Amino acid sequence: MGKKLKLGMVGGGVGAFIGEVHRKAASLDGKYELVCGAFSSSAEKSEKTGNELGLDPNRVYGSFKEMFENEASLPESERMDAVSIVTPNHVHFEPAKMALEHGFHVIIDKPLAFSLDEAKELKKIVESTGNVLALTHTYTGYPMIKEARHYVSSGKLGSLRKIYVEYPQGWLSSALEEEGNKQASWRTDPSKSGEGGAIGDIGTHAANLAEYVSGLEITQICADVNIAVKGRQLDDDSAALLKFNKDVSGVLIATQVAAGEENNLKLRIYGEKGGVEWTHTNPNTLLWKPLDEPVQILRAGTGYLSEAATSNTRLPAGHPEGYLEAFANIYVAFHDAVQDFKSGSYKSVNDYDFPNVDDGIRGMAFVSTMVKSNNSDKKWTEFVV
Amino acid sequence: MGKKLKLGMVGGGVGAFIGEVHRKAASLDGKYELVCGAFSSSAEKSEKTGNELGLDPNRVYGSFKEMFENEASLPESERMDAVSIVTPNHVHFEPAKMALEHGFHVIIDKPLAFSLDEAKELKKIVESTGNVLALTHTYTGYPMIKEARHYVSSGKLGSLRKIYVEYPQGWLSSALEEEGNKQASWRTDPSKSGEGGAIGDIGTHAANLAEYVSGLEITQICADVNIAVKGRQLDDDSAALLKFNKDVSGVLIATQVAAGEENNLKLRIYGEKGGVEWTHTNPNTLLWKPLDEPVQILRAGTGYLSEAATSNTRLPAGHPEGYLEAFANIYVAFHDAVQDFKSGSYKSVNDYDFPNVDDGIRGMAFVSTMVKSNNSDKKWTEFVV
Amino acid sequence: MGKKLKLGMVGGGVGAFIGEVHRKAASLDGKYELVCGAFSSSAEKSEKTGNELGLDPNRVYGSFKEMFENEASLPESERMDAVSIVTPNHVHFEPAKMALEHGFHVIIDKPLAFSLDEAKELKKIVESTGNVLALTHTYTGYPMIKEARHYVSSGKLGSLRKIYVEYPQGWLSSALEEEGNKQASWRTDPSKSGEGGAIGDIGTHAANLAEYVSGLEITQICADVNIAVKGRQLDDDSAALLKFNKDVSGVLIATQVAAGEENNLKLRIYGEKGGVEWTHTNPNTLLWKPLDEPVQILRAGTGYLSEAATSNTRLPAGHPEGYLEAFANIYVAFHDAVQDFKSGSYKSVNDYDFPNVDDGIRGMAFVSTMVKSNNSDKKWTEFVV
Amino acid sequence: MGKKLKLGMVGGGVGAFIGEVHRKAASLDGKYELVCGAFSSSAEKSEKTGNELGLDPNRVYGSFKEMFENEASLPESERMDAVSIVTPNHVHFEPAKMALEHGFHVIIDKPLAFSLDEAKELKKIVESTGNVLALTHTYTGYPMIKEARHYVSSGKLGSLRKIYVEYPQGWLSSALEEEGNKQASWRTDPSKSGEGGAIGDIGTHAANLAEYVSGLEITQICADVNIAVKGRQLDDDSAALLKFNKDVSGVLIATQVAAGEENNLKLRIYGEKGGVEWTHTNPNTLLWKPLDEPVQILRAGTGYLSEAATSNTRLPAGHPEGYLEAFANIYVAFHDAVQDFKSGSYKSVNDYDFPNVDDGIRGMAFVSTMVKSNNSDKKWTEFVV
Repeated sequence: MGKKLKLGMVGGGVGAFIGEVHRKAASLDGKYELVCGAFSSSAEKSEKTGNELGLDPNRVYGSFKEMFENEASLPESERMDAVSIVTPNHVHFEPAKMALEHGFHVIIDKPLAFSLDEAKELKKIVESTGNVLALTHTYTGYPMIKEARHYVSSGKLGSLRKIYVEYPQGWLSSALEEEGNKQASWRTDPSKSGEGGAIGDIGTHAANLAEYVSGLEITQICADVNIAVKGRQLDDDSAALLKFNKDVSGVLIATQVAAGEENNLKLRIYGEKGGVEWTHTNPNTLLWKPLDEPVQILRAGTGYLSEAATSNTRLPAGHPEGYLEAFANIYVAFHDAVQDFKSGSYKSVNDYDFPNVDDGIRGMAFVSTMVKSNNSDKKWTEFVV
Repeated sequence: MGKKLKLGMVGGGVGAFIGEVHRKAASLDGKYELVCGAFSSSAEKSEKTGNELGLDPNRVYGSFKEMFENEASLPESERMDAVSIVTPNHVHFEPAKMALEHGFHVIIDKPLAFSLDEAKELKKIVESTGNVLALTHTYTGYPMIKEARHYVSSGKLGSLRKIYVEYPQGWLSSALEEEGNKQASWRTDPSKSGEGGAIGDIGTHAANLAEYVSGLEITQICADVNIAVKGRQLDDDSAALLKFNKDVSGVLIATQVAAGEENNLKLRIYGEKGGVEWTHTNPNTLLWKPLDEPVQILRAGTGYLSEAATSNTRLPAGHPEGYLEAFANIYVAFHDAVQDFKSGSYKSVNDYDFPNVDDGIRGMAFVSTMVKSNNSDKKWTEFVV
Repeated sequence: MGKKLKLGMVGGGVGAFIGEVHRKAASLDGKYELVCGAFSSSAEKSEKTGNELGLDPNRVYGSFKEMFENEASLPESERMDAVSIVTPNHVHFEPAKMALEHGFHVIIDKPLAFSLDEAKELKKIVESTGNVLALTHTYTGYPMIKEARHYVSSGKLGSLRKIYVEYPQGWLSSALEEEGNKQASWRTDPSKSGEGGAIGDIGTHAANLAEYVSGLEITQICADVNIAVKGRQLDDDSAALLKFNKDVSGVLIATQVAAGEENNLKLRIYGEKGGVEWTHTNPNTLLWKPLDEPVQILRAGTGYLSEAATSNTRLPAGHPEGYLEAFANIYVAFHDAVQDFKSGSYKSVNDYDFPNVDDGIRGMAFVSTMVKSNNSDKKWTEFVV
Repeated sequence: MGKKLKLGMVGGGVGAFIGEVHRKAASLDGKYELVCGAFSSSAEKSEKTGNELGLDPNRVYGSFKEMFENEASLPESERMDAVSIVTPNHVHFEPAKMALEHGFHVIIDKPLAFSLDEAKELKKIVESTGNVLALTHTYTGYPMIKEARHYVSSGKLGSLRKIYVEYPQGWLSSALEEEGNKQASWRTDPSKSGEGGAIGDIGTHAANLAEYVSGLEITQICADVNIAVKGRQLDDDSAALLKFNKDVSGVLIATQVAAGEENNLKLRIYGEKGGVEWTHTNPNTLLWKPLDEPVQILRAGTGYLSEAATSNTRLPAGHPEGYLEAFANIYVAFHDAVQDFKSGSYKSVNDYDFPNVDDGIRGMAFVSTMVKSNNSDKKWTEFVV
């Protein structure tokens, strides 16, 4: 296992959903110790959170600026190694930039930034500092997603033809943001989320997953982006026809007004010789559909899977793993990269299997292309990074 | 039950898939007696089929023209009442026209005709003759589709927002038409199928089902229609963004190159207050997804369903019914209309729950709009009938 | 197809469930023509049913005795070939005996008779007359049950170890028989059903299916048979430990008080090298579970199945078939045997794949052994025929 | 959250499955810090494991005796609060006894001990020391199991009638213990597992779950316990008819030779008014089957669940949780009890929702009753604790 990394956190105060997820994901495998945090822009709230987490009060900060400066001044044996940034989208860029510039590695919730410009700027900083940055596109962490990717890359499907990815949610079917729901409020607020609502919040996950598993890139989009709940400023519903490179086409659905749906992310990829299907409600299963043969139910934890799947599984087959484990897989991979960095063996982020700044840029480009396409009468809009 | 209708058939000779389906569907409930047929353009093949079916050789014809003329000359107590037309698409219009004009009622496989023009012409003949015409969009015959429609029309979903309909098949993933597969051959041949391949064969089913259940009409289409298997002249793959009236949007997928898929027609409709989901692989189940409440598994044959579902079910809950029973439901409804016609109580085809010539026209318009949209750089193409 | 058999029916009057099922099953494939019936012990009701079915009034009888005598006197070209017996259990033996003795072939609903003694007596009559008798253990008619049997018999599972069969229903969870429910009334009445309630009604199906697919015979039973709904005279719930020959053990569940269950018959058989699983709610699927490999989803209508499955399927994969089709498969097989009989080529009932009088005897023995075991303090009771 | 508990561990060295599970479960929610361990009876292996876990070498012990003695001598601010015992069954009693007697709280893997006598003796020690002991019957930690229990206890099912619980596994279908599989080796060795094989390893889980959810106790057992794989000394397969108090009956299956099955624990409970069904392969779902109404799919993380379910869930609906989270729920509840103990507010273990020494005793009694019943010719054997 090796030594635990010392982790700091920006955001994730009381009532935050994703901050708690990051903490559990980091804890699960015993590879991180949370040592400090700036959990809220309110010093009082930050203090309260730090106290609840049992942190040294001296390392619970009222602002991320204060945290980075103070932590950077501590001796290496004490100071944090890396920071989790789990704030709403409009507070991603500044802390990430500052963390990198103070020598800290960064693991950041998606989407990478508030805008494509911010995302590109961040990439420059990653490159100039040479530090490690990971982006938590959770779903790429599932072992059966790794297996799906392995099936594609190893040629079992033959030449790819179709990619269908959908992420239907129903929780924003009514105007929860008007009822004080914190999660709904920032997600529907363009000053906090950026130019994308559902397309940023979940559409980026769908697009990222399709590209990750297929190994392809979206090249053109034809989007229909809607506001279903009257009064909203940001989209809560979208669909798009997609073109990928290598002559592959597809369909993407990302909606938050499919009443009754939870987080039903689903990916289907078809090639000449067969198809794969994965659904988030049953994440330890991958369906393999060879042409003219029986469908096979591939299961996490079994002996017949690829190394990529196996190394991202903790339990034998039939003991279900879930979202936190997928999330933790990204933390484990990021841990390995940072440890390698510290030991001098780190060469390139591409040697590690976690989403990075390039995925983040493509995510922001996805959002802006969806918006651009939606505003256009032309059928196809180029996906430009 | 009443007296059996006397049925004739055009097409459906040896090796035909859909002709046999029509015969079994007509037989199931004991409401039809097959009395004559012109099963093939080859008199020899027709004779062979008639013999196998145990028909009176005098009423097995070498051509549909001969059949209509001869049957029309028989006394009413003997001559056929109605004819099933189960030929490939390019042989729909002529026999339907002639049957109607000879005083016979017509039940015809979809798509209604070879082209939109033919379909419109046929409508005129239906109107001028006053006879009954039914179109076998099978899937509308399933009891849980009736229930879904009832849920929508009775307001349980509230205002509709989204419609997703997909019909993925995989059987045309390779060029079966080059290997002598009869079903594949005519479906991929524009001289027999018309301007649509997958969009005509299964896309029309998907579009029809979405309109039938939602009670809405497609108003605009943005299509991506492809030929995935090299060498084909007709599409084998398609997807489209849809606009319906009443501000509802949707997505349609119809592909025959999703390797490993069978006939996985799936319909999901979401409104303000909940959603419904039906899949052809599990046709006796309808999922009802009320917003913020547990999903309910509605099952055919139970006591809590609507009259529309119940009257289209033969068995108690848990005894599965399938495709032939759905098909037979259309035959039963057509039987009722024809019997009413014969007894003088028939007023309008709209009093009966089976797809009719208007559905047929919309199906042909769907195909032509898909093609037109695919050839256009504009995002949206009007769905014009 | 050949010539239609002329079919008579005993029972199946207005309001009868299984009579209508038999009629539809016989009709489906066009191999039978219903020519006569004694549909009720009330001549008036019988007449009414005959009229609704459009039968010749001269051949609608007030009693089966009258029917057999009169039909036997008709010329061969007119008289019925075979009779469906679809009465409650206590009216199975007499009409079956009389039919056989008058030269008619018999297809009879299960259980074969009212008692084991009656069943054995019937076997003697089948043997002495040489006529064909089929028993409608419906579930054996499903194509994927045929495939499961093929998997076992062809050795894919290796030596068998375990058989689990269960048939949970919930419809008798309350005392429907006191509310005038006709189906509930006779099933809970020992004077009509015999000594078994649930064990006769559905337990026999479960036991028959387990034996049919495994090719084994139950040798010992350890039963727990209960009356869950107070006031009943017959069991509505049961479970049993089973021993089969060849050192295989198993569990059987047959209950009608599993509230919320429909007809959830399920069979699982495990051998050294893998297992098979079939469920009635999803009858076109068979799960094949090879040891240490991915589970395979075998599907009816595909190209990779055995002849036994394929010849019992009417539709391509993905077009669901159901209960009536399974039922009809028994009618088709019985048709073939009777046609062979008529043409002189019939040798032995064992040449045909339908349940016969021996299955019927084993079913009655199952019931009596369950009762005997339940009344015993000893763990194991021999299954004696 | 409060202060972290300091945890020690007995067992769980390199290659151990369940030790790693305990560590992750303890880590997940940040409520424990692993401070010491006696990970193996080999001091070298223990040291290696401690080193990999980054523990202080002074607190990595060569034996649990050494650990308890040394830890007891440390100041309270340093010494461990509680110990996880994760050794094979034959090394449960001694460390548990010693830990309790040295003032440590104990969380111990199931089954509680090697024999029923040991289990009873342990209860005396728990009572005399007053310390907290938790037993990790993992499956009781799942939120939807809590919900099922709530449904039963709140009367939604009415009076209970039937309980079906099954735990089929397939991994011991061949003699893995002869191929050096460590997990298989001790489980099939009576000197390490005790008198039960499958019945102890998984049968106890099934029995415990049935009792936990139903709130009932097994009173009589009729068992069929087998050795399917030749050469084994312990059972690898079992089934039993069960009687519970309050006139409820049931069936239990626990087998490790159902080839192709993983850990398919399934519980179904039926009452007068409905049934519940839970399966381990889909643990975030509970089916609620009200009599004569649609089945409802209850889902973890939704707003309509009981407090018991909600407080054992970390994520919103649709983000799957799994086995480690269920396991962690036991650790969280144990943490609360121990913290209360430390703060003086602990009164009785029955105030906490985790399995305790009484469950452990019943588990051992289950094993011995299964064995006793299997050796008896009598149908029913009393379940005596």
